[in-house]
Amino acid sequence: MTLVVGVDIGGTKTSAGLVDSSGTLLAVRTLPTPAAQGPAAVLDTAAGLVAEVAFGAGDVTAVGVGSAGVVDPRRGVIVSATGAITGWAGTDLRGEVSRRLGLPVTVGNDVHAHALGEQWRGAAAGYADVLLVAVGTGIGASVVLGGRVLRGAHSVAGHAGHVPVVAAAGRPCPCGGHGHVEAVASGPAMLAEYRARAAAAVAGLADVARLAAQGDRIAVSVLTGGAAALGSTIGGLMNVIDPEVVVVGGGVAACGELWWQALREGIAAEVLPALREVPVGPAVLGGDAALLGAARMALEVAG
Amino acid sequence: MTLVVGVDIGGTKTSAGLVDSSGTLLAVRTLPTPAAQGPAAVLDTAAGLVAEVAFGAGDVTAVGVGSAGVVDPRRGVIVSATGAITGWAGTDLRGEVSRRLGLPVTVGNDVHAHALGEQWRGAAAGYADVLLVAVGTGIGASVVLGGRVLRGAHSVAGHAGHVPVVAAAGRPCPCGGHGHVEAVASGPAMLAEYRARAAAAVAGLADVARLAAQGDRIAVSVLTGGAAALGSTIGGLMNVIDPEVVVVGGGVAACGELWWQALREGIAAEVLPALREVPVGPAVLGGDAALLGAARMALEVAG
Repeated sequence: MTLVVGVDIGGTKTSAGLVDSSGTLLAVRTLPTPAAQGPAAVLDTAAGLVAEVAFGAGDVTAVGVGSAGVVDPRRGVIVSATGAITGWAGTDLRGEVSRRLGLPVTVGNDVHAHALGEQWRGAAAGYADVLLVAVGTGIGASVVLGGRVLRGAHSVAGHAGHVPVVAAAGRPCPCGGHGHVEAVASGPAMLAEYRARAAAAVAGLADVARLAAQGDRIAVSVLTGGAAALGSTIGGLMNVIDPEVVVVGGGVAACGELWWQALREGIAAEVLPALREVPVGPAVLGGDAALLGAARMALEVAG
Repeated sequence: MTLVVGVDIGGTKTSAGLVDSSGTLLAVRTLPTPAAQGPAAVLDTAAGLVAEVAFGAGDVTAVGVGSAGVVDPRRGVIVSATGAITGWAGTDLRGEVSRRLGLPVTVGNDVHAHALGEQWRGAAAGYADVLLVAVGTGIGASVVLGGRVLRGAHSVAGHAGHVPVVAAAGRPCPCGGHGHVEAVASGPAMLAEYRARAAAAVAGLADVARLAAQGDRIAVSVLTGGAAALGSTIGGLMNVIDPEVVVVGGGVAACGELWWQALREGIAAEVLPALREVPVGPAVLGGDAALLGAARMALEVAG
């Protein structure tokens, strides 16, 4: 069976996974992304992880890399990126990884890889037209149509975090704009909102979710407010894209039933009657989704 | 050269156009849609118009029909529709038109037909990935990807009028929901807003546009407010769909430079840096677009 390695480069951590052509994840290694040290250190880390998971495994024929930022899969470069990885924009991701490993490399956006993974082996298996939304540090989406990820004319398709929504009116967004859903519904946005309103020290969003489940009124308000705003955005996008299924993943999607209920209500308030029965559910592969999706991309170029 | 007829059935009027395979519109006939009389009268009118434009023209080999409402192109039926045409939902559009004319018929949504027309012979000629927005009595869109109209899993793709936007917060929308852009940016919405705020009798939106051009402050506020809201929605959709070009048509797009400037500013406030140079311009074919697009659909089944 053909063996490939999928790599997921995020602002916080980098993982590599050895995957066979049936979509079985055979080994995974993860390290913190040396984001502040710049592209060379990040690329060295990624290549080292590939070598580790591939060691002694037999012939690995290709590597797929999903990365944060806008990735041009044709040229193989990072077109633009937030400041999460210092100097990442402009990096020749495909060329640099290929040079370090001596293997064919294919690259793409990490959210697109996430969607491909869920569509291959996860919550969207068996569906051709999928809207996958990932909610974590940022908010991104992948639109899968006829089994293919929509990349867009400028490789930026799927930036669902940057859709205006009522609840975010006037709030600054990490993209430099204002009023986008990422400004109220991302993990950092909800955590900051809770800290500001509760004047309480919480370590992270998981604490806010725990407090909400215990009935803390501010925590409930913040979580359901963020989820409802995201649901509103997703519902509007469903009216335009008309997917068969909606899959929601990322760390924030682990915030529990209160968050999911508000998300579903937000969606239900917007969708046209013909879309009321479209299934909306959680991603099931967690961090493995992006690795599997990156591996799926690698299989397209594997010998 | 192959001859086909394109038909455009709207809530107000129905047109038929004789078109050759190069996309030249050879003859057009239009009549009011007998919308209150129900499907049989509407279908008789459409079939009569086809017979008129085809009379003496040589062999017409197929008919394409673009209709208001949600149209299932596979089954050929109207899945759902607003009340614009009494009893229209459930109509076997393809079967009934074909039976009346004895010709192969293909059917689709009127906004999709509009987009196909502009992409074939109009403002989007030469582009593969197009977002076309039509603003008139309602607001609809067509997403063209790789030269094909996105129909969606339930044939409702492109309902851009039913995307939530800040300026519409709380306002009832014709779809039964609230807060959608159609509730503030459609022609009837802006006309009603002007009448309410100015307490003045104006015959139609063209009067509001004329007053705005003359500096009437309420008219300027209403028109630019609607255009900015629509621009905000279009900008958010661009971040998700990433088209090569955006084309805006429909009667409201004839409201003049004030409206267009506010639309462009609304878009610019939302789009990611990579999309700032995406061209945004007017549809150029007017009412002919839907006829040409319907004819284009007919050519796909023409012998």
